[in-house]
Amino acid sequence: MTTAPAVRRVLLLSNSTQPERGYLDHAADAIVRHLRGAKQLLFVPYALHDRAGYAAKARERFAALGVKVESLHEAKDPVVAVGRAESLFIGGGNTFRLLDALQGQELLAPIRARVAAGMPYLGASAGSNVACLTIKTTNDMPIVQPRSFDALALLPFNLNPHYLDPDPGSKHMGETREQRLREFHEMNAPPVVGLREGGWLDVDGARMTLGGLGSVRLFRRGEPPQEFPIGSDLSFLLRAGS
Amino acid sequence: MTTAPAVRRVLLLSNSTQPERGYLDHAADAIVRHLRGAKQLLFVPYALHDRAGYAAKARERFAALGVKVESLHEAKDPVVAVGRAESLFIGGGNTFRLLDALQGQELLAPIRARVAAGMPYLGASAGSNVACLTIKTTNDMPIVQPRSFDALALLPFNLNPHYLDPDPGSKHMGETREQRLREFHEMNAPPVVGLREGGWLDVDGARMTLGGLGSVRLFRRGEPPQEFPIGSDLSFLLRAGS
Repeated sequence: MTTAPAVRRVLLLSNSTQPERGYLDHAADAIVRHLRGAKQLLFVPYALHDRAGYAAKARERFAALGVKVESLHEAKDPVVAVGRAESLFIGGGNTFRLLDALQGQELLAPIRARVAAGMPYLGASAGSNVACLTIKTTNDMPIVQPRSFDALALLPFNLNPHYLDPDPGSKHMGETREQRLREFHEMNAPPVVGLREGGWLDVDGARMTLGGLGSVRLFRRGEPPQEFPIGSDLSFLLRAGS
Repeated sequence: MTTAPAVRRVLLLSNSTQPERGYLDHAADAIVRHLRGAKQLLFVPYALHDRAGYAAKARERFAALGVKVESLHEAKDPVVAVGRAESLFIGGGNTFRLLDALQGQELLAPIRARVAAGMPYLGASAGSNVACLTIKTTNDMPIVQPRSFDALALLPFNLNPHYLDPDPGSKHMGETREQRLREFHEMNAPPVVGLREGGWLDVDGARMTLGGLGSVRLFRRGEPPQEFPIGSDLSFLLRAGS
């Protein structure tokens, strides 16, 4: 595993919508800063079944920010569209469906190359999951089988979006999120960032900070979980083998 | 898809433990009836990391019922052990880890053949999931990648164990269980039995009944979900293409 080039710009949201707020509203300022004046954004709607409806929603939201959206599902040649994009946004939905579609169109390597060259990458939920090493820490149901669980690996760790603390009053006998992540570490080594709703990881070159409202619970194999509040510098996680 | 032979005996529990009760206690009477006097049970501990500890737990529980447990992880030849088993119990844990291990030891076909010939099959949670068509409706995290999501297909539908109704007071923005199952039906056709905790499916030949405490929410592609109370005859689901 090698450290990605220092020009990468990656913004990963835990969730696209906060309770009682509009689509992406809670993160709009951070998104505008992240795009650094890009006037065009390539949207990837593959995590939802209704791609056209999803693209229309993104188009409307980004128009209010002065950004023109092109949707990858309308591109004649998706690889060419990625090559030309000023910025990229992969929306949330089902992570298996998303990764299966990206793999089927051979888009992982082209996206990786563009991000390494400085194209801003924005992800929400499933779109944040696939920016990390693998999708082995998604919360989603495996409704389709991707060729591999390996994802974009823009960052050298795994993410669990919508991270949820155990409900002490619950009588449900299913595993808690923390138990599931412990199972991940029974079989895998990479650290996992449990990103609570409202929060985001903002990567600018060699620096990663925690923004938004939600804090982070960090899981490392063989160690007790650690808590990090909003504003924390998490750059140490960008170093491979951290 | 063909209907399985009429001698099959399959008992699928949503969960192995009810709140404030001991391991398998809530279903002990149904398990004893299901085993029909079998004195030996082959236990499959592959869904948990600690196979020896899991086998010890099962051994102690079944000893109280007068049933001797052999654990598959101690068998010199797992396929031979399946061939000789009087009855089989696949315990819960992580469904991906379980199916990966079963596939790796080439155990799916031998188990299928024994169940078709009348060997009682008991499953709990992940062990109930793998008895159905695929693991595409598991709640578990994909911590390892099995060769395929195809499972034992002892029954011609999919199962969602630990089925959970939406919490109307929740502010969490992750998908509800019902939304996840709707996503499954965007990509797949088979019916899904949402089996609430405390409940079980009891298959005896061509008849399937719903036992225990938890009721069922049945999801069919393109149709509104249906509710079935305890004691319901669900035999219609055993007919392929139901």
